[in-house]
Amino acid sequence: MDIHDLTRGLMIRNDHKIVMLVADGLGGLPQRPGGPTELEAARTPNLDNLAKKGVLGSMLPIKPGITPGSGPGHLGLFGYDPLHYVIGRGVLEATGVGFEVGPNDVAIRCNFCTVDAGGKITDRRAGRISTEKSAPLAVKLREIILPGAELFVEPVKEHRFVVVFRGEGLGGNVADTDPQQTGVPPLAPKALDDRSKRTAQLAAEFIDQAREILADQPHANSLTMRGFAVKPHLPSYEEAYGLRAAAIAVYPMYKGLARLVGMNIVGQPSTLEEEISVLEQEWKNYNFFFIHFKYTDSRGEDGDFDAKVKMIEQLDAVVPRIEAIGPKVLIVTGDHSTPATLASHSWHPVPTLLASDTCRTDGCQSFGETAALTGGLGHFEAVWLMPLALAHAEKLGKFGA
Amino acid sequence: MDIHDLTRGLMIRNDHKIVMLVADGLGGLPQRPGGPTELEAARTPNLDNLAKKGVLGSMLPIKPGITPGSGPGHLGLFGYDPLHYVIGRGVLEATGVGFEVGPNDVAIRCNFCTVDAGGKITDRRAGRISTEKSAPLAVKLREIILPGAELFVEPVKEHRFVVVFRGEGLGGNVADTDPQQTGVPPLAPKALDDRSKRTAQLAAEFIDQAREILADQPHANSLTMRGFAVKPHLPSYEEAYGLRAAAIAVYPMYKGLARLVGMNIVGQPSTLEEEISVLEQEWKNYNFFFIHFKYTDSRGEDGDFDAKVKMIEQLDAVVPRIEAIGPKVLIVTGDHSTPATLASHSWHPVPTLLASDTCRTDGCQSFGETAALTGGLGHFEAVWLMPLALAHAEKLGKFGA
Repeated sequence: MDIHDLTRGLMIRNDHKIVMLVADGLGGLPQRPGGPTELEAARTPNLDNLAKKGVLGSMLPIKPGITPGSGPGHLGLFGYDPLHYVIGRGVLEATGVGFEVGPNDVAIRCNFCTVDAGGKITDRRAGRISTEKSAPLAVKLREIILPGAELFVEPVKEHRFVVVFRGEGLGGNVADTDPQQTGVPPLAPKALDDRSKRTAQLAAEFIDQAREILADQPHANSLTMRGFAVKPHLPSYEEAYGLRAAAIAVYPMYKGLARLVGMNIVGQPSTLEEEISVLEQEWKNYNFFFIHFKYTDSRGEDGDFDAKVKMIEQLDAVVPRIEAIGPKVLIVTGDHSTPATLASHSWHPVPTLLASDTCRTDGCQSFGETAALTGGLGHFEAVWLMPLALAHAEKLGKFGA
Repeated sequence: MDIHDLTRGLMIRNDHKIVMLVADGLGGLPQRPGGPTELEAARTPNLDNLAKKGVLGSMLPIKPGITPGSGPGHLGLFGYDPLHYVIGRGVLEATGVGFEVGPNDVAIRCNFCTVDAGGKITDRRAGRISTEKSAPLAVKLREIILPGAELFVEPVKEHRFVVVFRGEGLGGNVADTDPQQTGVPPLAPKALDDRSKRTAQLAAEFIDQAREILADQPHANSLTMRGFAVKPHLPSYEEAYGLRAAAIAVYPMYKGLARLVGMNIVGQPSTLEEEISVLEQEWKNYNFFFIHFKYTDSRGEDGDFDAKVKMIEQLDAVVPRIEAIGPKVLIVTGDHSTPATLASHSWHPVPTLLASDTCRTDGCQSFGETAALTGGLGHFEAVWLMPLALAHAEKLGKFGA
């Protein structure tokens, strides 16, 4: 079943506004059995107050047991089945450095590597070259001229960089050239379908010229290419939901993900406080706002329980400013859990709060994972969050008579 | 997955009886955050007692955020996926006025409209003509003779009436003739597939003759046709579940929906008390009873919280009479929520009660939306209510060895 067939068919346009505040990696774990999670340990009077006025739920980002990356995590929140809409690795990498992938682009994740005189790989990461040394090399590769295609090269970090070919009708189905082992040469780029033959030729040409440019480098004297990908076709927020949507984020990755679904990127905030100021400034121009807060995830990834608690308290502090502008629907959630005890993304459900004057309140008195288990939204999959948001904003008509 | 493939394959026939008492629009909303819903505010000692003996659940009529009309709402309760089995608008309109749509019928919603001397629509609703004036006009259209097809015309209300063509092999895929604007003539009926060409011809012929009959009318001098539809094929209760099913309802719409799944319509009750008397009289003849109570929805649609509370108390009052006859399984639910605060159908889950001596009781002490959140049936989609009913009635065998 296509959720957007449903939402398109039932669409009601009105000026009610929806705010989706995403605290990346919000969900957590207790440090000992029965203890509080990061969210439960945090002092969150504003979120607790919102929980009393709204409704909670325990949200599965994808399916039970499945840990999402940032791409699928956000696609789910945005209402796009992450098992159906796959964002290729190359596109995700380009998006992460702020490169706006277009409809005629093939994006590729690349690694600098070291090869010996016989062309065999001796180090797949070019001696863990520093970003200071690798970035100028990536920029130098922009000198390469490809016949009949535009080329973009963007540094990423350490041995990693991203390459984009732009040209009509380029397919994205090319096998990785990384042999995943040392002692053998990189593989030649091989098209996996007819549409991608030209892409494979461009890749071979790029590699030839790059090896000449890199020939004198002590470590980064060759490269491998992985994750060839074209931009996925995603129905836009306007088309799927009838929403004029804005994204407010600090990091390029999340701006890029929002751009893929047709959101406008507004402001150039560098803190959460500034993000809320952008929300205030842009309030009249949009009826959907995605606000991304990164640091709950970052401190979870660090394995720092107390620091993640503090980030959640920072989040709590801005809630009154959002409420003061008067959204019809205010959602607070995460794209996945990042428990400090695991120091990584996890599969655990994400506590989710939806506040609106059309809520059936559910007796929950605070915002937390345990409270969410008896919340009115129950246990639900992330792809249903947007239909729920639209319904509470009275933007979905009746199905059938 | 086809639920009926499952139920058919596991079917056990026995004489245990199931009663499904449907309070239309049962689910509600609190008047203020944290307050009681209509069901929670109502004094319902009998339903509360049943909740202690049975099991509760929070039932999604279709999917999260999706508000059902009466047709899809009931199909879900009956165990037919409302996203798969679509009842066309024409069939629903005919059903609503008690017309029994047959397998060779195409049903069409029609509007009287006003056209000027040039044939252009000046009023799409014929000056909001009263039912007193429009009903005799609809009846007059029965004079029309169509070559090779039977014709039925039924008045509905104000400018609305319904037309049914009966004949072998008539398709229902014809575009609406209503241009949805004034200043242009009605569109000619246009078949959207080969099977529907004959239907479009009949429609054109009907319109020609109707315009002659209506020529002298001051307002209703023309018509538009919408929602052409044939009867959907639904497996019957007998075939899908092995049940001899009876429907007890006051209003034609609900009798019609029950008839679509092969239920027999029994009695001619006009009150809830009379409906229960019909149940008592027919008890020995069937092993499934659908009882429809309309007024919870009506008072919700009126936006009258207190009146809806009273209707729920009326419902509560008949519960002992149903229990006294001794059903193996007694279900109390609704086809959707109709919160008085919204004065319309809504997407909120429906509190659902299932009582049987095969229940795993769940600690719920009263029947209400909040209690249902921790009920033993959990959060579930309406299409699973029938399998749950069959299971508790010991009518479903083991799947696999």
